[in-house]
Amino acid sequence: MTTSKSYYSLNGQPIADSLPLNLLDDRGLSYGHGLFESILMHQSTLPLVNRHLDRLNRGANAVGIPIKSDLIYNYVQLFLEQLKGESISQGVVKVIVTAGVGGRGYKSPDTIEARVVCSYSNLPKGIEDYRNQAINVRFCKHRLPINQPLAGIKHLNRLDQILARNEWTCDNYHEGLMFSESGHLIEAVSGNIFVKLADCWLTPCVDQAGVSGVMRSLMLEEIFPACGIPLYVKPISMCELAESQSLLLCNSIKGLAEVGSVDNHDNQLFKSLPIDEQTLMLRRKLIELYPQYQ
Amino acid sequence: MTTSKSYYSLNGQPIADSLPLNLLDDRGLSYGHGLFESILMHQSTLPLVNRHLDRLNRGANAVGIPIKSDLIYNYVQLFLEQLKGESISQGVVKVIVTAGVGGRGYKSPDTIEARVVCSYSNLPKGIEDYRNQAINVRFCKHRLPINQPLAGIKHLNRLDQILARNEWTCDNYHEGLMFSESGHLIEAVSGNIFVKLADCWLTPCVDQAGVSGVMRSLMLEEIFPACGIPLYVKPISMCELAESQSLLLCNSIKGLAEVGSVDNHDNQLFKSLPIDEQTLMLRRKLIELYPQYQ
Repeated sequence: MTTSKSYYSLNGQPIADSLPLNLLDDRGLSYGHGLFESILMHQSTLPLVNRHLDRLNRGANAVGIPIKSDLIYNYVQLFLEQLKGESISQGVVKVIVTAGVGGRGYKSPDTIEARVVCSYSNLPKGIEDYRNQAINVRFCKHRLPINQPLAGIKHLNRLDQILARNEWTCDNYHEGLMFSESGHLIEAVSGNIFVKLADCWLTPCVDQAGVSGVMRSLMLEEIFPACGIPLYVKPISMCELAESQSLLLCNSIKGLAEVGSVDNHDNQLFKSLPIDEQTLMLRRKLIELYPQYQ
Repeated sequence: MTTSKSYYSLNGQPIADSLPLNLLDDRGLSYGHGLFESILMHQSTLPLVNRHLDRLNRGANAVGIPIKSDLIYNYVQLFLEQLKGESISQGVVKVIVTAGVGGRGYKSPDTIEARVVCSYSNLPKGIEDYRNQAINVRFCKHRLPINQPLAGIKHLNRLDQILARNEWTCDNYHEGLMFSESGHLIEAVSGNIFVKLADCWLTPCVDQAGVSGVMRSLMLEEIFPACGIPLYVKPISMCELAESQSLLLCNSIKGLAEVGSVDNHDNQLFKSLPIDEQTLMLRRKLIELYPQYQ
């Protein structure tokens, strides 16, 4: 089922749309001092919740927000119960963790009291096409800055993604490919990427720029190994992208997408890609192990 | 007078702490899709409001938030009236502009309805020392990323400043100096910088990284010229910093500060600086034209 009603919880307590919650002094709003996770809900469970909370933990450490993973796990479980009570069993659970009150100066307060907000939304539009069609993508002009301490983290500073995503308004493209300031392919606006060359599969490093996606780690650690397909993590140049034989995008909500064509910044065809046997194998394996991505 | 009570307005309407305002789906919180200005209030006026609103306008254009400057000017004036009604005549008025509702995906909604929040705070602690003493500063390890489309803008993505500011917790330092990924001196954590060499004054470009400060523009366009002191905008290397004869920091709330000593990342002295005649002249001129910085 889909719903247009909003559901929220704050630190495990259900809150209503109209309930007072003053976020005007929250460091999340003031500075983007916080993190988020968008978690796929399937049959009233969150199958990849542990991977999401692991990343949240690493991010919290990087941006100096003390959190307790088991507490957040409990808040999320309580929110699932809240949704179950509303007969909602699938969709997206978003968890935002902010550094809490303290918007007067960049220095963190001596004691940070993190806020954990859970919210619910329906599955995104276009999810079936993403999973079942060869999708069209394009280059983004906006470059991801090199920022080692913040790379990999799903933090609340997302202007780079916003600028990139707003480069196109037509419905022709499912995704945009983002490059770093140094010219390397890094990721899609809302997902990670795998590139098949003549003799191997590659995925970009995300230790200088980009997000370390939950689906990326699943593919790296489980799906590629389970298929017996070697995959290497390394910087990927424009030349390598031009020589690619297959491109895969992934996103922990939408799953896995095969790229059919890549357009450049001017919407001119850069490359079209044939159906790839290994890609089909990877998708089958993913669905076998994680049927929520069917 | 100082106050610990909070004052806010939303789109020109006063709101109370306890009034419901759902920011959980606001793009400001979700992605930092917004801007802010902290404006010095002096005798119930905002002497530099036009410079702040000009920058806000440029930023809104850069991050794709349609705003009307005269409308925001009106909101700010209404907020000043609100504060006057509470007998508050000095302090800081902070204006946050967000891209409004729409936290489900990076793509901006077809129609953005910007939210304009005004809030009040007391003058920051240490402001007298900043204006009247030679202050101590230190290097920050965290580097500012190169990001031309977002450089200069006072947007809500401030994790770089947070990481830099949290590098020290002791009270020995008033400010931290930030360098870019490319190794150039860019700014202080909360202000801009002017460097006196043997034969000229320099201030860093902020077209690749950093914030184009309101006080920086005032110094560039009015104060240096009024003193007949040439000032050049150019990239500044660590060598040039090492050879500097005087360093000035500025911030539109705190005013102008002369740097007495610079420590490196390990809190070891990098450089101490003598009192400088031209610096005194610049400060006198600033106070003459803008007595709020007395």
